[in-house]
Amino acid sequence: MANIPTDIPMRRGMLFVLSSPSGAGKTTLARKLLEQEDNLFMSVSATTRTPRPSEEEGKDYIFVDQEAFQNMIKDGALLEHAEVFGNLYGTPLAPVEEHLQQGRDVLFDIDWQGAQQLHDRMRDDVVSVFILPPSIKDLEERLKKRAQDSADTITYRMSRAREEMSHWAEYEFVVVNEDFDRAFRDVQAILHAERSRRKRYMGLNDFVRRLSEDSA
Amino acid sequence: MANIPTDIPMRRGMLFVLSSPSGAGKTTLARKLLEQEDNLFMSVSATTRTPRPSEEEGKDYIFVDQEAFQNMIKDGALLEHAEVFGNLYGTPLAPVEEHLQQGRDVLFDIDWQGAQQLHDRMRDDVVSVFILPPSIKDLEERLKKRAQDSADTITYRMSRAREEMSHWAEYEFVVVNEDFDRAFRDVQAILHAERSRRKRYMGLNDFVRRLSEDSA
Repeated sequence: MANIPTDIPMRRGMLFVLSSPSGAGKTTLARKLLEQEDNLFMSVSATTRTPRPSEEEGKDYIFVDQEAFQNMIKDGALLEHAEVFGNLYGTPLAPVEEHLQQGRDVLFDIDWQGAQQLHDRMRDDVVSVFILPPSIKDLEERLKKRAQDSADTITYRMSRAREEMSHWAEYEFVVVNEDFDRAFRDVQAILHAERSRRKRYMGLNDFVRRLSEDSA
Repeated sequence: MANIPTDIPMRRGMLFVLSSPSGAGKTTLARKLLEQEDNLFMSVSATTRTPRPSEEEGKDYIFVDQEAFQNMIKDGALLEHAEVFGNLYGTPLAPVEEHLQQGRDVLFDIDWQGAQQLHDRMRDDVVSVFILPPSIKDLEERLKKRAQDSADTITYRMSRAREEMSHWAEYEFVVVNEDFDRAFRDVQAILHAERSRRKRYMGLNDFVRRLSEDSA
């Protein structure tokens, strides 16, 4: 039997998408994931918004003007985009594709509309997780704690949260954030598990063929 | 806002299927999973084989005669069955369905033919993992270590292993068992992650509806 070295096959990275109504803990979960995972990177958005003093070009955002942004849309260079308070935000495809090809996973903390666009463009690479609050009381309390807002603002935010929650069924996984540590472990397990999904391996066919021929 | 308690929805259990060529570590992985996981149960097979002295009826196997086994097949009471060295083995559906309804997961350590039958009968409930050896040399060494067999027996087993390996692409997940602890963590992550799969929740629709109405 020849002893040809059979390298463990590489895998293609994934787009790991977290969505939730605001106040359900998505951003805290995302931050902790990025801290604990070596191979997970936050996608950097392009925006037409003016940079804030603390923000660094290329790290926090890619700052572009209206014309450049419209060209990116026209060229299909954005995976998803949206307008928020008159500013445009979008995810450039090229750096994401580079991550995936190198076997690195990319984290997206986005709403259902962004998730839908990612899904339309890169279905096979997307793993989508929806975070739900354990109760509406819990969600309302977290929203109230977050800022000293007027009752109207709270009402508006709750209505936005309900709208976001109505899209839970478009996601592959659902995690109820009743206990943060438990929810974090669940989300982390999804990331780890999806790395073993057959379709993500590159060259697995050749690997198994070598395994078989090798013993002939 | 009414404070109606919103119970976290239950989930339906899954059929967690491990297959591999013999010698790739599947049985050791399965044993450790059963030790560490509270909510995972080994499926108990029915067989026409004569009980061995150490074997306990209903725990190791359900021992039945040929006629009873044939009736189970005819009644569709078996999820899968196969003949091995003249004896029939099969998985009764009823206890598996009971586990699933109670939110308990059921572990199957079976070959590709059994996995295919499970998949045909209970597609939505099956999570299938194929374990590959890191190299054919590794597999051969493990097979040799296992017993002082003749060269012919080893050759036969290697040919069986190749046959089994040719079915890797029918599985959802593939884990290469290069390092046992790493492979175990990967398999365990798949089990944990799949518990959060949306379609497994029972009553998630009602749960989200209550979340939304509650705040109206």
